Amino acid sequence: MHGPSHLKRPLSTVDVAVFAVIDLALHVLLVQRPQTASEPYPGLWALPGGYVDIEVDATLEACALRKLREKSGVRSPYLEQVGSWGGSKRDPRGWTLTCVYFALMPTDGVGLVKGGNADDVAWRRIQGEGVGEKLAFDHSALLAAAVQRLRSKVEYTSLPAFLVATSFTLSELQATYETILGRPLDKSAFRTRMLAAEFIEPTGEMRTGSNRPAQIYRLKDRSPVFFPRTFSPRGDV
Amino acid sequence: MHGPSHLKRPLSTVDVAVFAVIDLALHVLLVQRPQTASEPYPGLWALPGGYVDIEVDATLEACALRKLREKSGVRSPYLEQVGSWGGSKRDPRGWTLTCVYFALMPTDGVGLVKGGNADDVAWRRIQGEGVGEKLAFDHSALLAAAVQRLRSKVEYTSLPAFLVATSFTLSELQATYETILGRPLDKSAFRTRMLAAEFIEPTGEMRTGSNRPAQIYRLKDRSPVFFPRTFSPRGDV
Repeated sequence: MHGPSHLKRPLSTVDVAVFAVIDLALHVLLVQRPQTASEPYPGLWALPGGYVDIEVDATLEACALRKLREKSGVRSPYLEQVGSWGGSKRDPRGWTLTCVYFALMPTDGVGLVKGGNADDVAWRRIQGEGVGEKLAFDHSALLAAAVQRLRSKVEYTSLPAFLVATSFTLSELQATYETILGRPLDKSAFRTRMLAAEFIEPTGEMRTGSNRPAQIYRLKDRSPVFFPRTFSPRGDV
Repeated sequence: MHGPSHLKRPLSTVDVAVFAVIDLALHVLLVQRPQTASEPYPGLWALPGGYVDIEVDATLEACALRKLREKSGVRSPYLEQVGSWGGSKRDPRGWTLTCVYFALMPTDGVGLVKGGNADDVAWRRIQGEGVGEKLAFDHSALLAAAVQRLRSKVEYTSLPAFLVATSFTLSELQATYETILGRPLDKSAFRTRMLAAEFIEPTGEMRTGSNRPAQIYRLKDRSPVFFPRTFSPRGDV
């Protein structure tokens, strides 16, 4: 049994917006389309992704993780589905359906991205909801949806903790929240709220340097925490 | 150009959880699978849906609307994408990818559903996050995700206004919010907040009956309103 044989099936793909905070600015990983005239959008930049292969991928999410590994070497980032886009106009090769995910990479993983310095893979700074130029296919719209989702969740989840280094001080975590929110937070209120939410734990080590020593923290587990609605990393609620 | 010919494509489907409030209880529209042994899950109930047909459907959303029309006669409900599920284990007929939507039907549309009284289409009451019995395929999980999404959005959007009748009093709107939230709301605070959110307008007519006459309202447009985070239909925030 393999479904109705008369039916023409859409091409199914997965695309991933991989976010990282680099130099206190939100960035996304893009790949450049081949400069081959027979391929659509030659030379334009796009989200990494590709076709679902039903002989290789057990699930949609396994497909997204495979694409990430192949295009960036990244193995187990935080991954979340944003939504699906499908239609006859998305791709000149035919009716396509894409399922879009975003992934969050800790800052100490940024330099490990395979091909991150190659001509055809690059970290691009997010400006507004895009990267300041039109991407291939409808990827500008897909990226905008992923940026909106990430920003909206910063208000009420621990997601930014997946974007700092794998061990971090509270000041570094605050800087990451501020980077994505785009505004400063009250230091004292931020610390109180982060510790009360119980998603981080001290490593026992201290960061020493020009300032006074600061406790180093790590995430307790790999799932994000949803703050109560009356709880906010903002000092103003 | 029609994509890589060596690649086996998933079967792509759309499934829709159509919600309505009937007798002050949340219900979902289900269809019964054929009693044919050659079909998977014979006789079990499932969300209405079916295959994407790339020769008929311009987009994924157009496909969802077509399935709704065909299965229920409903033409233009509020429709929102919940997410996609894909994998090799979902359907014995092969690797399938489904995109799940939920639709909201006004109470005065419930009786108009084509086949709503037929043996193979039924409104079933939501208990918890399901209907109290196992559905075909992974539809119990898909329905639970749709119920969770609807409930979570009731806290901060005007979505319940798509579930009352197309014209309604504030008491009727409040009863719908209370039905989905599962708890009573303060009448005075609710009225103040609903009117301040400016998504409804008076029709100029009054509902008369055993109580004192009440203003009848309708929605201003077809898009839901997102309340500010500090605004809530609950009186307790």
